[in-house]
Formats: sequence, structure tokens, C-alpha cells
Amino acid sequence: MAEGLMEEKVFRDPVHRYVHVKDKLIWDLINSAEFQRLRRIRQLGTCYFTFHGAEHSRFNHSLGVYEVVRRILLQFEGKVSFTQEEKLLALSAALLHDLGHGPFSHSFEKVFGTDHEEWSQAIIEGDTQVNKVLQGVSQDFPQQVSQVIGKTHRNTLITSMISSQIDADRMDYLLRDTYYTGTNYGFFDMERILRVMRPYAGKVAIKHTGMHAVEDYIVSRYQMYWQVYFHPTTRSAEVILRKIFERVKTLYEQGYQFNREPLHFHSFFQQRITLQEYIDLDESVVLFYMGEWRKETDPILSDLCHRFMDRQLFKYVEYEEDDSNPEWMGELKELFRSIHIDPDYYLAVDSPSDLPYDVYRAGDEERVPINILFPGGKVEELSKCSTLVESISGKRRYDHKLYYPRDLLEDGTRDSRVVEEIYRRLAMFS
Amino acid sequence: MAEGLMEEKVFRDPVHRYVHVKDKLIWDLINSAEFQRLRRIRQLGTCYFTFHGAEHSRFNHSLGVYEVVRRILLQFEGKVSFTQEEKLLALSAALLHDLGHGPFSHSFEKVFGTDHEEWSQAIIEGDTQVNKVLQGVSQDFPQQVSQVIGKTHRNTLITSMISSQIDADRMDYLLRDTYYTGTNYGFFDMERILRVMRPYAGKVAIKHTGMHAVEDYIVSRYQMYWQVYFHPTTRSAEVILRKIFERVKTLYEQGYQFNREPLHFHSFFQQRITLQEYIDLDESVVLFYMGEWRKETDPILSDLCHRFMDRQLFKYVEYEEDDSNPEWMGELKELFRSIHIDPDYYLAVDSPSDLPYDVYRAGDEERVPINILFPGGKVEELSKCSTLVESISGKRRYDHKLYYPRDLLEDGTRDSRVVEEIYRRLAMFS
Amino acid sequence: MAEGLMEEKVFRDPVHRYVHVKDKLIWDLINSAEFQRLRRIRQLGTCYFTFHGAEHSRFNHSLGVYEVVRRILLQFEGKVSFTQEEKLLALSAALLHDLGHGPFSHSFEKVFGTDHEEWSQAIIEGDTQVNKVLQGVSQDFPQQVSQVIGKTHRNTLITSMISSQIDADRMDYLLRDTYYTGTNYGFFDMERILRVMRPYAGKVAIKHTGMHAVEDYIVSRYQMYWQVYFHPTTRSAEVILRKIFERVKTLYEQGYQFNREPLHFHSFFQQRITLQEYIDLDESVVLFYMGEWRKETDPILSDLCHRFMDRQLFKYVEYEEDDSNPEWMGELKELFRSIHIDPDYYLAVDSPSDLPYDVYRAGDEERVPINILFPGGKVEELSKCSTLVESISGKRRYDHKLYYPRDLLEDGTRDSRVVEEIYRRLAMFS
Amino acid sequence: MAEGLMEEKVFRDPVHRYVHVKDKLIWDLINSAEFQRLRRIRQLGTCYFTFHGAEHSRFNHSLGVYEVVRRILLQFEGKVSFTQEEKLLALSAALLHDLGHGPFSHSFEKVFGTDHEEWSQAIIEGDTQVNKVLQGVSQDFPQQVSQVIGKTHRNTLITSMISSQIDADRMDYLLRDTYYTGTNYGFFDMERILRVMRPYAGKVAIKHTGMHAVEDYIVSRYQMYWQVYFHPTTRSAEVILRKIFERVKTLYEQGYQFNREPLHFHSFFQQRITLQEYIDLDESVVLFYMGEWRKETDPILSDLCHRFMDRQLFKYVEYEEDDSNPEWMGELKELFRSIHIDPDYYLAVDSPSDLPYDVYRAGDEERVPINILFPGGKVEELSKCSTLVESISGKRRYDHKLYYPRDLLEDGTRDSRVVEEIYRRLAMFS
Repeated sequence: MAEGLMEEKVFRDPVHRYVHVKDKLIWDLINSAEFQRLRRIRQLGTCYFTFHGAEHSRFNHSLGVYEVVRRILLQFEGKVSFTQEEKLLALSAALLHDLGHGPFSHSFEKVFGTDHEEWSQAIIEGDTQVNKVLQGVSQDFPQQVSQVIGKTHRNTLITSMISSQIDADRMDYLLRDTYYTGTNYGFFDMERILRVMRPYAGKVAIKHTGMHAVEDYIVSRYQMYWQVYFHPTTRSAEVILRKIFERVKTLYEQGYQFNREPLHFHSFFQQRITLQEYIDLDESVVLFYMGEWRKETDPILSDLCHRFMDRQLFKYVEYEEDDSNPEWMGELKELFRSIHIDPDYYLAVDSPSDLPYDVYRAGDEERVPINILFPGGKVEELSKCSTLVESISGKRRYDHKLYYPRDLLEDGTRDSRVVEEIYRRLAMFS
Repeated sequence: MAEGLMEEKVFRDPVHRYVHVKDKLIWDLINSAEFQRLRRIRQLGTCYFTFHGAEHSRFNHSLGVYEVVRRILLQFEGKVSFTQEEKLLALSAALLHDLGHGPFSHSFEKVFGTDHEEWSQAIIEGDTQVNKVLQGVSQDFPQQVSQVIGKTHRNTLITSMISSQIDADRMDYLLRDTYYTGTNYGFFDMERILRVMRPYAGKVAIKHTGMHAVEDYIVSRYQMYWQVYFHPTTRSAEVILRKIFERVKTLYEQGYQFNREPLHFHSFFQQRITLQEYIDLDESVVLFYMGEWRKETDPILSDLCHRFMDRQLFKYVEYEEDDSNPEWMGELKELFRSIHIDPDYYLAVDSPSDLPYDVYRAGDEERVPINILFPGGKVEELSKCSTLVESISGKRRYDHKLYYPRDLLEDGTRDSRVVEEIYRRLAMFS
Repeated sequence: MAEGLMEEKVFRDPVHRYVHVKDKLIWDLINSAEFQRLRRIRQLGTCYFTFHGAEHSRFNHSLGVYEVVRRILLQFEGKVSFTQEEKLLALSAALLHDLGHGPFSHSFEKVFGTDHEEWSQAIIEGDTQVNKVLQGVSQDFPQQVSQVIGKTHRNTLITSMISSQIDADRMDYLLRDTYYTGTNYGFFDMERILRVMRPYAGKVAIKHTGMHAVEDYIVSRYQMYWQVYFHPTTRSAEVILRKIFERVKTLYEQGYQFNREPLHFHSFFQQRITLQEYIDLDESVVLFYMGEWRKETDPILSDLCHRFMDRQLFKYVEYEEDDSNPEWMGELKELFRSIHIDPDYYLAVDSPSDLPYDVYRAGDEERVPINILFPGGKVEELSKCSTLVESISGKRRYDHKLYYPRDLLEDGTRDSRVVEEIYRRLAMFS
Repeated sequence: MAEGLMEEKVFRDPVHRYVHVKDKLIWDLINSAEFQRLRRIRQLGTCYFTFHGAEHSRFNHSLGVYEVVRRILLQFEGKVSFTQEEKLLALSAALLHDLGHGPFSHSFEKVFGTDHEEWSQAIIEGDTQVNKVLQGVSQDFPQQVSQVIGKTHRNTLITSMISSQIDADRMDYLLRDTYYTGTNYGFFDMERILRVMRPYAGKVAIKHTGMHAVEDYIVSRYQMYWQVYFHPTTRSAEVILRKIFERVKTLYEQGYQFNREPLHFHSFFQQRITLQEYIDLDESVVLFYMGEWRKETDPILSDLCHRFMDRQLFKYVEYEEDDSNPEWMGELKELFRSIHIDPDYYLAVDSPSDLPYDVYRAGDEERVPINILFPGGKVEELSKCSTLVESISGKRRYDHKLYYPRDLLEDGTRDSRVVEEIYRRLAMFS
């Protein structure tokens, strides 16, 4: 069943130095078409518009998550007795957990209603190379991997390695995104954390001597959200991308005659997507279409694609809903329309939010809390023992911004009194 | 003329920490469509198949070269008096020196006979956004930038900052490629080298106290070539890519009916490429076509594209031409044909070579040698004072490999005696 | 007055890469006997017993603080107009701020009542090489430097560069101690912070765009205190050191006949220390005496010195005063005495505490708060805009530990019932 | 025999991240007085005068060598079957190989004729704590460890891990010295080298795929010698140190009345050193005496000690013996004497030399050559397959410098014509 490789394979990795592959199963999964596809999907979507270093792919990150789980398993040796199949289950799920990500996932999912986790499961359980390789272990192995990713597998310890508030996924992406962006907010001492991880009550818990290292990890995560993931330039590019998808969909529904028909998107418009169609879509396909659509006659589609390809992004103001004036946004849209700028595509509120850490709330399997193990068997939830974590725990922080195209407002063709009025209103928030 | 920015702009950069932009000219060049296009062209072509971290773009590198030149100029303050326009010339040429690179340049240029340096010049001098921005400095400024890139500008000091054996281009790419691949062979002490650079006789020379730092740089370069740039996995992917381009061209010339007509390549097949067609081509376009061509009925094109997209590469043996048997290759090809594998597409010798450092040879402006300045005014060419450099100077090292598809030979459908005979012959070199 | 050096001198520095010296004044200060003495005083005292990498000296750190102030001054160019003398004042005060540190300062000061800041001022204003060099600038220059270090100089901007809650001193030591210990808790983005520092109302303030970087710095500081500076192994060595000093003093006062008379300490025992005696004392002197005192006939002094030299430290339990039993400690001491272990030297409570950040309280010039500058001129104190900082602001955290020699208790010569009783009492806290 | 620790101990290490200790034997060795003494001896002697970061101790380095051997043993698992005792032998020898180093070894050994390797063996085999701990393994275990260090043990594989041209000692010190000095010349990819190490014919050999990594290591070593270890400032301090030891010895032999009698050195002067006297000597002792001797009435001793303590070093010129004028040096000395500067203490030729790599020469067990293992069993000595290594192999490079006190020549009290004549002669080499 679990065949070893003749010789260990290694991948040189900037973050973990080496990714070690000893099992033929893992080697074959990496070499499947569906996993290689992840090379064509960026880990951080539009973030490269802000941090030019952030050009790394989900392939890159997925290898990293696999490696972190491999090290956790080494750490657990002697502490918990996994069967060889359970180890392969943990490793496979780690490697494949992002398999279903589409191009520029965040924007894509919002417009087309897809869910990358469901697609990861679909690829693993469907008629794919990955599925065939997994079946080599046992008949129900693909389904088991799928359950770990879906957080429904009975082995909660394995699940919590990949999905919890201190899992291999998060640890890898913080370190990796920090490395590629060249920021250093996401840096924390992973080696220390691995050393203090303990299996406890069917979950991963942390020995108390590592409490400060975990604090540092939580703060790093908090910082990365505010400094990198929610950076307004990145979000501006995402807003434009979303508007492009919306425009294409609308034009398609209106029967618009495309020069470059969005063939790869038809099934998405119609909400009956086959596995192969989903897999065929990657970021080079999306970029290809956007390149072509720059030449469409529809001025909105053409302009938005030009903006994305050539990085002519929207500007923004901080924004807070004004309860005393519920008409505010409607009036602003009206002003836009009056100078011939369509607010449906050129005015957008974006509100990313983050919950850096949270205590457990019944039913929320996404948020397995971090438990600290003290001598004598006492167990305490992290925010109970750390003022620092407590201060940011459970507090969802919002960041509301209103994006708009300053260049259009100032292109000299608009009624200057209206433009002034628009600026006057926008200035309220700055 | 040389307008400053209201506020300095910075790019966070993993290699130089920050890239500083103070001139509106540079800011506008970065925001031009032609420069933004470099985001869609990888710095190291197919290298990401070997080192998954090597997913960085030429945009990334170009900003870096600009930053290195900016620091050289700071270093030269008080030592040479550049006018503001000369400084902008050096900075612009640094930023734009790779502007004409196409997708997967090495393979592409070999098949289609294009030259990225000529295209850089064409984009700078043609009807482009970059050209318009450069014209803002002075009428002939675009041509001057083009001359620096073409190494024909009268100011040889500026040219040698960007093109010599120790120029900003090489220094940036060694550090950058090392960083993204996660290897460390390319690391050297750039800050020290910048400190010892001196203008001398219209070129950049090196103060003798920095001789060891320069030695280290030369050795780093030598190592990167053998460890990273010529890695056989990378070359295997390049061989396949070249074969894809050749196959498409042949099919086009034979009037083959494509499912996905290679519209973006027509002008390349016909050797009358317009500027816009050249600019429209980037790696997302090439990847899009390859994705589509996996479904073509031509088995060779379809198979090669599948190989590239899904990383099913060719294997290789070391290869040396056997003078005692000039028929060797012909016979091998015949053996391939006899088992129905077309050697024109499935058998390829690849011979990358490198000259890590060379002394000057008359007329070779590419190879400005490195001069070391000693106290008392003595100047010596580097390989004269360094045993280490002398040992690798002027010695072009070749690496000949023969690539072939082992999977096809072993797919169970071929005459096993022929396959054995093929392996027997290939084994001669290993 | 302000003579430049013929050629800039550089020191290779692991933390800031290079320390640049352009002024003859600074070069001469570095080469004074009093400054070179700092090479013989470790930056982190006994911390090397815990983190073997922490062997760096105050010389090392002082160069770093100088370099940070040099960069702040560069950053302030164009924003504030310092005279050349003011710049030299800032640089000199930065370089010399730790000049008065003695060997293993913390323990030393506790026993002998010295104050390193006062001694820094005494050395600068006294008959020393440093004083002579400083007088080269102007008659009252030494006094000015002394005032900056004493935080009484009229130029509060310069003072706040060196002494505030985000000063060059703290920024350098966090980065440096992190580097040498090999931990990474102290790492933060200093370059970013330097970029957002602004002179404001006669102090250094921070532009709002750098708020997260400052948050990160505060958290780093908090982490370093708990992970490194207050590490119980380090504190255990400090406890022993303090007990050695106390024992020597007691023996001296009792007229004990030393084999190795503590000549270098006489003036400290008598509280009339001359400048030269103070300067003559460094860590090699203290270590020399301890090496010698291992052979004294007094068993306590001999044992304690052996413990320090050979790292046979005390163990500890967490400790909290038990209000319900005020006699607890007295009883424990009695138990120690009953088995012939002198509690005055072998039982010690140590309570380091830290205030990671604090808002301003009237009169506390040590704690200049960090002000954040928002667009439109709004200024807000840091903990008002950061939940993270707010959570640890103004909260002094104590760490009480009780140190004792487990090896003595278990040497087989003590009454086992008493030892058991001692352990029973100690176990209350663990 | 080989007792494990209840819980693995780790040391945080800046170079290897963590040093792992699992055996009680190793833990007890580390905690012995003789090993703790290494904390008081710097790894790089006087190098801290040039690179202020180089303040790390031999304790620091010894832990590192131990860790590297531990990793080699892990790497060899499955490739060679060591008994538990053999593993402990390798680990103990690695940890203790530098145990006999004295203060500022290079200068000290030259003047007093001691040999640190012999003293390492003496401490291991003598009546010491280390010896007692080692005896816990087996009666002859101390002697075995001593033999490995002396390169006479029958297990040449273990010996070659610690003493060869690519041993744990060299790998650790290159990385460590690079880290602490803040240079980066010594950096190479140790992890890669560990992966390609193979036991072969009773020695450590290198798999051919790691050839370039080994090349890089050899070049790093070459660079570190020329950039760091032989730096003229470091050598100048060493010259002064040597002269101090020579002066003290001479004064002692002349019956000079010291204010501070060199008690710790008597046995060295008399060449009958006991083990305890040797162990009692460390750098704090030497520094203590030098501090005291600054106040001696002998002007030479006093001046030299002041120079060392306060970093008032000698200047130098490059120097080559002039065969055409064998009297040259004699004449120069005469000139010195004529202006009352004693050339025995104030004029010194220093000629460090390095052999970066060498092929094997019969009988030279110090220079085990590096063998490269090729597929099919071919073995080739490194310099045969690497041009780079070949270029520096077997070529001992000398660096002759003449040190002299420029400050004395220019103190205004000397005959200016003689001084001019001295400078004229010195200028011949520059």
C-alpha cells in the first residue's frame, strides 16, 4: 500500500529550506495534472499589484503546508500512534487542501458563487488523476481525504493539523507571504511552535512553555491582515476584477456580441459547471480574456480590463455609513450618473474584515480555539492566559473603503460643479 | 523637465528592502502599459519547474536593476558630476533594459528569431506610452535611452553601469534569483561592491580593497549558472516549449486546421510583427494557447502541450558527440522512427554554455572586463590579480545533454528490442 | 570645529550591515580608552548562561545606537534644521549613553548603589580622554552631551531620539539582542519606523502610516522581556552574582583575611569611588576575582563563585506572597538554617517587572509617550489608536520567583524530613 | 550505559537554530567546569578589534560542532551501523575537540610553546570533571575520545567527521564566524552538504550531486581567511599580544619587580605547567593582568598593555624580503634603535598563510582530501573535478606584513631625519 520512493526527493524551498518527499503517493499527487494546475493560480490573488514580490503560486504554498504537517507528524512520534495510512491521510490532505481554488478566488467566488473547498472535494472525489492516485491507498481513501478537508473526518486530531486557529495552513502562509512580499510582519518562530505542539483530547494543543511563541504568531497574523492582505491597492484591483466578471456576465445575459466570446465562462454564467471546465480555468486563461477584452466595443468592459492589465486602479476614501443620512449613497450614485459614469461599475464599497483569533463558539468548527497545557494537567484557552491575545480576540475589525476612478472624474469632460460636489461628499470621511 | 514627486514613493522589495522612486518620470514609466506587461513574463522562464519559488517576473527584476543604479549614482556623488538628465538617463535605461522580453524568451527567440534587446529599443522608440513619457524629458531622450540599452551611447560610464561584467543587471538578478529559488549560491555582498565602485576612464572600475568581494560575485555567478540556470529539469521544459513552437509553426505552414487557431502567432510565423502584436504577447497568452492545444487532434502538439502544462518532462543523458561514429545520432533517430516516435520532436540535444568571466577581446562590447584600481594609480584586469577568477576566466563550459521521453519508450506499445537498443546506446554516456 | 575624516570609516555590523563614521570627533571618541572599555562589559550581563549567543558587548550596542541616530538625522534632513554642532551632539550622546555601565550592571548597582547614568555623566564631564575629545568641539560641549544623556538638555528633540519609548537605544538593543541570542522575538521593521519618524512639538512622533510597524515594535519589546531578559536561568545567575557581592562586602566588613584581597572593590565598599577606580572595573576583573575566590576558605564565597564560574545555578519555583500566612518566608528560612544552609545567601526572591509601554504621567520624563500624527494635524497617543498596545499599556507585569540550591538539599547530608518539608512548601506554588 | 535525558534539552543557537541534547552524557559534559571555561575564551582571539561582532566564545562554537556531528549521524542512519557507544564517541569528541584552547591561543602558543590539541587530550585523560563523566560510559572511553581528537583512533570515519578538509569543525566555524562578524563570505549550504555526505572507505565522502556545494564551501573558506582571519588589524593586535607575553617573560627572567606579579604565568615561564594551572588560565585572567600592567614602571610592558586594552594598534606595510639587500631589516632595526624605539618589541613581521585545500600527501593526516563519489562507483579527488578548487589547491598563500607604531614615530620627540629615512624605506613596499 504505502510505497516508499527509491530515493527521497527534495524540493528546495525558500521558507522551509527543503520539502522532503519520501512516499510515492505524495510524489504522484504532486505530479498530477490537477496539482500542477495550482502553479497557474497565485497564492495572494491581486496582492502583487501592491507588493511586487507576491507572485508565488498556490502550488508553492501547498508544498509548504505538506512539509509543515510532515514535521508535526515527526514531532508527534512517540506521543500518538498513527498508522501509516493515517499519516498518509494527514499528508495528502495537507497537500491537497487548496486544490479547488480558482483564479483570483475571492472575486471569482463572490460573482459566481463557487466555493473552493467544495471544489477541492469534488476534484478529490471525481474522475481525476488525483483521485486515481489516492485510490491506490484504498478504495475509500479519496473520500477520507475529502472529509479531512471538509472537517468532517472522525479523526479530529488530523483535521485540526490542517484546519484550526494554529494549523499548518496558516503557519505556512504567514511565513510564505511574509517572505515573498518582503515584509516581516508575518514572521514567527514556527520551529518553536512545532516543538510545543501536543495531541490533547483529539486536537492539537500547546505546551505552556510555548505560549509566548503562540502569542507572537497571533499578533503576526493580525499584522499581516492589516498590512498586507487588506491593503487598499490590493483591494482596489479586486474590486475592478469583480466588476469585470459582473460586466461580462451582464453582457452575456444581454446577448452582447463579443469579439472574444467568453467560452470558458459560459458554464459559470449558467451555473452548471463540469469538473473539467472548472479545472481548465486558471489565471492565465482569465488574463488572456482580459487582454482580449481590452479591445471590446463595450466601453465599460474595455476600460475595466485595461485598468486591471495596466494597473490603473481606483482611488479610495475611508467610508462609514452615515446613519443620519441614509440617502447618502443613493445621492452619490445619482451624481455619478449625471456625469455619465455608471456607479454600478465605478463606485464600490469594500469591507474586508478579520477575526484574528476567537474563542470557541458552539458549532463553529472553523474556529477550533488554541488550548494551552499547563503542568499538572490544567488546560486553558489561549485568550484566558494572554492579555495580548485577549485584546484582539473575538473582535472583528472592519475596514470600509469606497473605491472610485479619480482619473475619470478629472478627465476634463465632466461638469466641474458636479465633480466638486462629489469630492465634497467624499471628503467627509478623510 | 525633471519633475520630482510630491512625496517619495517606495516599493517594498524582498531583495533591496525598499525601491525608492523620487522622480515623476520613473513613476510614470513604471505605470505605463508596456512596463506593467513585464508582470506577465517570468524572470526565469521555465525554471519554476525545478525551483518552485522561481515564479518572479521581469517587472520584479526591472525595479531591482533601477534601484541598484540609483544606489550607484548616490555612491558616485562627489566623484563624477552627472547632470540631472544624465541621471534620469541611467535610471530609465536601468528600468527599461528588459522591456522587450517576450514570453519564455529563450525558447521563443530561438524559434522565431526575435531579439529582446532590439524589441526593447523598438518599444522605447516606437509609438508607445513609454515613449511618450520619455519624450517629456527631451525630444531625443527616448533615443538616448535606447542607445544606452544598445550599448552605443557616447556616455560609456552610464552604459557600463547597466551592461558590463559587473553591472546592475547581473548584480540584481543573482541576488533576486537566489532569493526566490531559495538557493544561496548567488548571494554576495553587493553593498560592499557598491562602496568600492569608482568611475575610471569612462567605465566603472573597482577599488582594490573590494577585490575579494568581486571574486565572490564572480564565483556566485558561476555557481548560479551550474546550479540553477542550466538545471536539466529547467532545460527539459525549455526543450519541450521549443518543440511546441516548432510544431505549431510547422502545422500552420502545412495548413493544419486548428481548433484554436494561433492568431497571436500568425505575424511571428510570417516574420512581419507589428509593435502592438509583440506587446500583446505575454506568458498568460502562451499558457492559454497551450491549455487549448492539449485538445488538438494533432497528437504531437497535443502531447507536448500536455507535457508542458502538467510537467511530464523529458529525461536526459549526458551527451558528447562521438567523433569516431558520426552516424550515431542518425542511427538513434532511425531507431526512434522505427517505433513510431518522431525524433524531430522527441529527441533533442541541448547545450547551454556559460562564460563566467572573460578578459576583453577587441570589439566585444558585451564583455567589458573588470578593472581593479590599486593605490598609486595602477590598474589591473581582475583575472590578473585573482587566481580564483583566472581559473574560470575565458573558459566557456559546455553542458551537452540529450533529452528524450522515457515514458513513451516504456508505455508498453513499442518493440522491446528496439527500446533495449536505444537504452544501450544512451547508456554510453552515463 | 567639526572636522571630517579624510575617508569615511565603516564598521561591519551584523545588525545594521555597516556603521558609518564621517566625523573625526566620533572616530576619536570610539578610540578613547573609556569607550574601548565597553568591549569588556557584556550587553546582557548574565544572559549568556541562557542564550550562549548573547556574548556581545556594550561597545557593540553603542556603535549601533550611534548608527540609528545617524539615520534618524538623515531622515530629518529637510524637516528640521539642525546645526552641525547639534548633529554632533545627538551623535555623541548616542554613542556615549552607556559609557558608565559597570560589570554586570544590574547586580552590581543593586549591591553597591551605583547608577550607570550618573557615571556616564561623570566620565563625560571628568578628566578623561572622552572629555578631552568632546572639548574639541566647544568648551561646554561635554556638559551638553551629559545633559542629553541626563534628559535635561533644552533640545528635547535630540533627547527624545535617545531616550523615549521609541528611541535609538531601544530599537538597537531589541534588534541586536535578537540577533545574538538567535531568537526572533525582537525583530521589527526599523527601516519603516525611521521612514515615518517626524519631528513634532519638540519630540519625535510617528506618521500614522507607520502605526502598525510601531505596534509590532512594542509587541517585540514585550516579548523580549518575557522570553529573554527575564528568563529564569539568567535571573538565577544574577541572584548568585548579587549574593557574591554581598558576601564579599560582609566578609570585608568582618575583617576576613582574603587569599585574594578585593582591592578593586575597596572603594566601593567604602562608598568613595574615584573616576579611575570606576573605569578600571570591568567584567574581566570581576571574573578574575571570582576565579580566585573559588579557592577562599570561606565556604559560602567559595561555593557561590564556583556556581557562577561553572554554571551550577539555583533552581526556582514561581512564588506569590501568601497574605494568609505572613510567617511563611520566616519559617522557610528557619528550615534552611536547621539543615545548615544559610538562607541569606541561598534563598532569594527575584521580581523583575516590565512596563512594556506607558502613557505619559506628569513628571515622568523617562516615559515620553509615542504620538501618532494623522492627516489634518490630529495627534493621538499610541495606546488610544491601538487595541494591541492598549492591552499592555501601563500594566506593570511582575514575575516573582524564589531561587534555591536544589543540589545542596539533595546532597545526602541533610535531614530528609526537613528537606521533604521544604519541598512540600515550595510545591505550593508550582 | 548510555542514559537518555528525561526530556530533550535544546539550546537556542543563531547558526543552527537549535542544538539538541538527548544524552545525559552530553548534558553532563556541557555542565562540567572545564567545558564551561570555554565561555571565557573567544573563538576568534583578537578578531573583535576588527569586527566588533566577533565576541563569541569557543563554548559557542563547540556546541555548534557537536550539533553538526549529531546531524551527520542522523544522515548516516541506514548507511552505516554505529553502536550507541560509537555515536557517543563521535558526539563527545565533537563537543570537546577545542577543550584545550588557552586564552588568545595563537599568540599564547607561539610564546609559550603549548599546543591546544595536546591540552585537550590532557584534560580529557587527566583528573577532571570531564574525565569522570566520560568514564561513566566505559573505562577506556576518555582515551578513545582523546584518540579521535588526536586523529589516531582506529575508527577513521568518526575521526574524519571532526578532522578533515570538510569536517564539522570547519563547517561550524565558517558559518558561525560569518554570522558573528556580519560578513557573508563564509556562508555556504551546509544542509545540502550534509545530505550528500556518504561513508566511503572508512572516511566521509561526497556524492557527486553535491560537488558544487562543496566547491562553494572551499571558496567560502578561502574568502574567510583573506577577509576575516588574516585581517591586518586583527594581526596587529596579535603582534602586540605576542610582544606583551615576550616582554613579561623577559622581565620575569631578568628578575624585574612587578607591581602585579604574573603568578598565573610562572609555571608557563618555567615550562612545568600543571593541569589545574592550565585550566585556571582564561581570557579574563589575561585581560586582568594586562589592565594591571598598564601601571607597571617598565615603559615597554606598560605601553604595550595600554595599546592592547585601548586599541592603539600598530600600523603596517606590505612586506617582501628583498634578496638583493639582506641587510635591509638589520638596518631598519638600527634606525629604530637610534631614535630609542626597541625593535624587538616595536617592529614585527607577521606572515599568516593558508592552504585553502590540498590533495593528500603521504603521512599528512591533517589533510584528508575530499573525495567525490560518481555513479557507477568512480571516485575522484575534488580538485580533479573542479577547476575552481584546482586553482587554489595546494597553493599556500602568504601574506607578509611589517608592523610598526606610527604614533611613536610621529610623537614629535624623534629625530625627524631618521623618521623620514624609516618612512622612505617602508614606502618601498606600498
